[in-house]
Amino acid sequence: MVRAMGLAGLLLGLVVVPAVLVSTSLRHGAPRTEADPESSSWELAADAVPEDSLWPLPQWVRTYPRQLQLAPSRFQLVHGAGSSAGPGCGLLQDAFRRYYEYMFGHSRRRTWGRRPLAARAEPELFQLQVVIEAGDPGCDRHPQLTSSEAYHLTVTEPVAILKAYEVWGALRGLETFSQLVHEDDYGSFLVNESEINDFPRFAHRGVLLDTSRHYLPLKSILTNLDAMAFNKFNVLHWHIVDDQSFPYQSIYFPELSDKGAYSSNLIYTPTDVRLVIEYARLRGIRVIPEFDTPGHTQSWGKGQKDLLTPCYKGGQPTGSFGPVNPIWNTTYDFMTKFFKEISSVFPDELIHLGGDEVDFSCWKSNPEVKEFMKKQGFGIDYAKLESYYVQNILDIVSSYNKGQMVWQEVFDHKAQLKPDTVVQVWMANNYAHELSSVTGAGFTAVLSAPWYLDYISYGQDWKKYYSVEPLKFPGSEKQKKLVIGGEACLWGEFVDATNLTPRLWPRASAVGERLWSSSNVTNLQDAYKRLTSHRCRMLRRGIAAEPVFVGYCAHEAR
Amino acid sequence: MVRAMGLAGLLLGLVVVPAVLVSTSLRHGAPRTEADPESSSWELAADAVPEDSLWPLPQWVRTYPRQLQLAPSRFQLVHGAGSSAGPGCGLLQDAFRRYYEYMFGHSRRRTWGRRPLAARAEPELFQLQVVIEAGDPGCDRHPQLTSSEAYHLTVTEPVAILKAYEVWGALRGLETFSQLVHEDDYGSFLVNESEINDFPRFAHRGVLLDTSRHYLPLKSILTNLDAMAFNKFNVLHWHIVDDQSFPYQSIYFPELSDKGAYSSNLIYTPTDVRLVIEYARLRGIRVIPEFDTPGHTQSWGKGQKDLLTPCYKGGQPTGSFGPVNPIWNTTYDFMTKFFKEISSVFPDELIHLGGDEVDFSCWKSNPEVKEFMKKQGFGIDYAKLESYYVQNILDIVSSYNKGQMVWQEVFDHKAQLKPDTVVQVWMANNYAHELSSVTGAGFTAVLSAPWYLDYISYGQDWKKYYSVEPLKFPGSEKQKKLVIGGEACLWGEFVDATNLTPRLWPRASAVGERLWSSSNVTNLQDAYKRLTSHRCRMLRRGIAAEPVFVGYCAHEAR
Repeated sequence: MVRAMGLAGLLLGLVVVPAVLVSTSLRHGAPRTEADPESSSWELAADAVPEDSLWPLPQWVRTYPRQLQLAPSRFQLVHGAGSSAGPGCGLLQDAFRRYYEYMFGHSRRRTWGRRPLAARAEPELFQLQVVIEAGDPGCDRHPQLTSSEAYHLTVTEPVAILKAYEVWGALRGLETFSQLVHEDDYGSFLVNESEINDFPRFAHRGVLLDTSRHYLPLKSILTNLDAMAFNKFNVLHWHIVDDQSFPYQSIYFPELSDKGAYSSNLIYTPTDVRLVIEYARLRGIRVIPEFDTPGHTQSWGKGQKDLLTPCYKGGQPTGSFGPVNPIWNTTYDFMTKFFKEISSVFPDELIHLGGDEVDFSCWKSNPEVKEFMKKQGFGIDYAKLESYYVQNILDIVSSYNKGQMVWQEVFDHKAQLKPDTVVQVWMANNYAHELSSVTGAGFTAVLSAPWYLDYISYGQDWKKYYSVEPLKFPGSEKQKKLVIGGEACLWGEFVDATNLTPRLWPRASAVGERLWSSSNVTNLQDAYKRLTSHRCRMLRRGIAAEPVFVGYCAHEAR
Repeated sequence: MVRAMGLAGLLLGLVVVPAVLVSTSLRHGAPRTEADPESSSWELAADAVPEDSLWPLPQWVRTYPRQLQLAPSRFQLVHGAGSSAGPGCGLLQDAFRRYYEYMFGHSRRRTWGRRPLAARAEPELFQLQVVIEAGDPGCDRHPQLTSSEAYHLTVTEPVAILKAYEVWGALRGLETFSQLVHEDDYGSFLVNESEINDFPRFAHRGVLLDTSRHYLPLKSILTNLDAMAFNKFNVLHWHIVDDQSFPYQSIYFPELSDKGAYSSNLIYTPTDVRLVIEYARLRGIRVIPEFDTPGHTQSWGKGQKDLLTPCYKGGQPTGSFGPVNPIWNTTYDFMTKFFKEISSVFPDELIHLGGDEVDFSCWKSNPEVKEFMKKQGFGIDYAKLESYYVQNILDIVSSYNKGQMVWQEVFDHKAQLKPDTVVQVWMANNYAHELSSVTGAGFTAVLSAPWYLDYISYGQDWKKYYSVEPLKFPGSEKQKKLVIGGEACLWGEFVDATNLTPRLWPRASAVGERLWSSSNVTNLQDAYKRLTSHRCRMLRRGIAAEPVFVGYCAHEAR
């Protein structure tokens, strides 16, 4: 049992239904008989058999054959009796409105052919009552690693009840409830009586977007946050700047984007950044900004003089610059002020400090750097210089009470890390071994290596992402608990607003289920069926997710 | 010299400027110094230096430093003196309006910062005069293989002149002229004085769309036709039906789509089909429909009883069906009527009859088929049965005065083909050898094998498509002339309206230039620069073409 599950499950379990802590999934007890989706008997229509469209699959689901009907004009999402949240909880109010729209909104345009409610025999479901059990529901807080996302949902006549310890669990439960509701051919909205107990397997479930190789308009980022919520992701890893451009508009150092962005229009203003953070918060998604140094910083040098290392050739500066200059005090003065701003602009407990792919050649060419190496006794081991730099940055950021996330090289090069540093494992080559090493040294790990979604290939590559087992590495139970989750990374070299959505979704959905659902949810044929439905649902909700395979969506055929 | 070039060049050459038949490209005489686009010195902004944004590169371009200015309020696209076309030529009138919009339309929204015309020193270009030289300009005709697409363009003060033998050349020249016009940072529209002589290297330059694996809404098809025109493609190969669905609504056999389409809403009505054909015609694009038989026909069987072969196992029918049943007269009665309709609905000289990937196992299982094989003396060579079927279909279609296009297996299996049959080479394995065989036997060939764009991969795969030389196969000059062109194929297993455009463009643009431009236009760095600009232009014109590599478009930065 990993940390997230233990914690979240426990909090809810004690209060509501201890029995459901058992992670047996009834859903998967029954034998399944679907044909291989790539054989000649494809499932062409992605039709919404209710329980076959849940994604990611909850930890524990029981559905009953009895169907209840929902009348859009009467059905209400409301705060239940005993909830610590009420109409003053903007986060839930917003979610109620949003999920009402997802369930019924698309049908407004089609009022033809709708059978009157009375014509059906099914009893009616009148409300979904949401009960938050913690004393402080968390309405105005930001989600964090230790937030509870667990929830318990019962759908029975005449009202459904969604219980959660905090609002974050309610958000996840609302998503699940909305996935249970389906529309029949006559335009009636139905839900099967059911009971669901659910919580995430991993606490950190991220998507990395890269806004430096290509600028992504604000709208693309917000659309992606919607899609993330549909897939129960809870971390946006915002790789906001890199060599190519610096679109983050700094308050203290406006020249960074004035000169380092592709254009003064292709930037994220403080207002934009606040909007992204709030839009994400309302969906239970943390925003972890990455300001990668000392490598990947060419764009920083344009607006900040004397920050990067001048490269030399034949005893003369070439006019080119390398990584951040680690030997000058001015570098650390700048970083101190810069990360003070970042620490205050981004509310998340973590800042990602990068640290990947530092090219030592420019440092090696620079006589001042060489002199410094000698003085420090680093010999010719430039990894030591890198660690020297990184530790200074870690100290600066720690002084602002922020935790840190870094790429694996920072660990590999033996920097002195704070014990709570999160190490992101990204190198595809033998990542299981790296997970062993990182957790063996007692550090927390996030896995990305098998989930670089920018590497596209022909066919159903979602199966490859889906079939990863993050805890399959040599290590103790204690080590496994240190793997807090993973991230699907969509680097931006070949991605901008034209292709972001269909390239990321539903491929990232495979990662979403792997990180949320029980480790025994691995049947590809079952996943194919649900993913196909889920993709159609995303499409209905305005996410241009690409097709999984041949076929069509039921709503396209209406 | 291939056929297209010889013919088109000759027609125009005799009338206008015989000298330009020389295929020297002055454009490529100058040494080029661009950095490798994948090195650290990427070209980040796709800025529009005029001659660096032409795509596909014309056969002969000379540009002069002198710039002329265009005033959107005054500039006119008009019929020139001596043109056989006039205001009655709807095709050109429509093209004038369209290209005016492409050149100036996007700037209407931004009237700020526009310098008054008088403030610039440049002389003004007042008109583009279009002169069609053939007695019949072709305004109301459909383009065909032998249509002339050659044109000659001179841009000098005070008017530019575009001469073409037929309207098809004028369409290509309008595209080129619109690519020369660029907007500076102050919102002024400028064009360099220049002279261009141009004609296609290959006469058949196609894009295959597959509307069976996924239905493509009409709008997606029309958008794609726009993009094709921007890249001087001239054939839409419409792979309209296949195993998965039959979206073509037949007039004689409406049950084919009633029962064989994904849904009765996911079809192309006769009106839709007419619209596609007309929209394509106005852009100089032929529509070649493919009705692939005897394989790939599962969807046909749903609406047409007794058409497909019943499969057997252990002496009993299994209830499954195989390819079209080649032994019954009713099959040919149906096909006679069906192709009569197709021949009249689609005006193009060619119908694609498919013939690929026929699975013999069902035929082999069927006792009636076995009996027929014996009677015909085919032994156990089912390729002979396939050829028997195909020849019957070829005869039927020939009787309607239509030419035929087939996939390579029809040739490989030694069917008796009409001499003018076009054989499409699609198998990646040793396609050069296949081109040799097909042309060696005297048949016309179209190459697709290296251009299956549904096979995606990471990185700049356009370079792979671009670097293909279609005539690099063992054969005589006469054989080479039989290669009339090629097609970029986007099969639809993983493609629908969500990802069609960014997946196809600008990757297909690489094929577009290979098929249009001179064989010596092969410099990847030069192509990178122009393709990046061209992609931005497509974006400005509403085509969501994906990025070639890191960077941004100048218009996004404004």
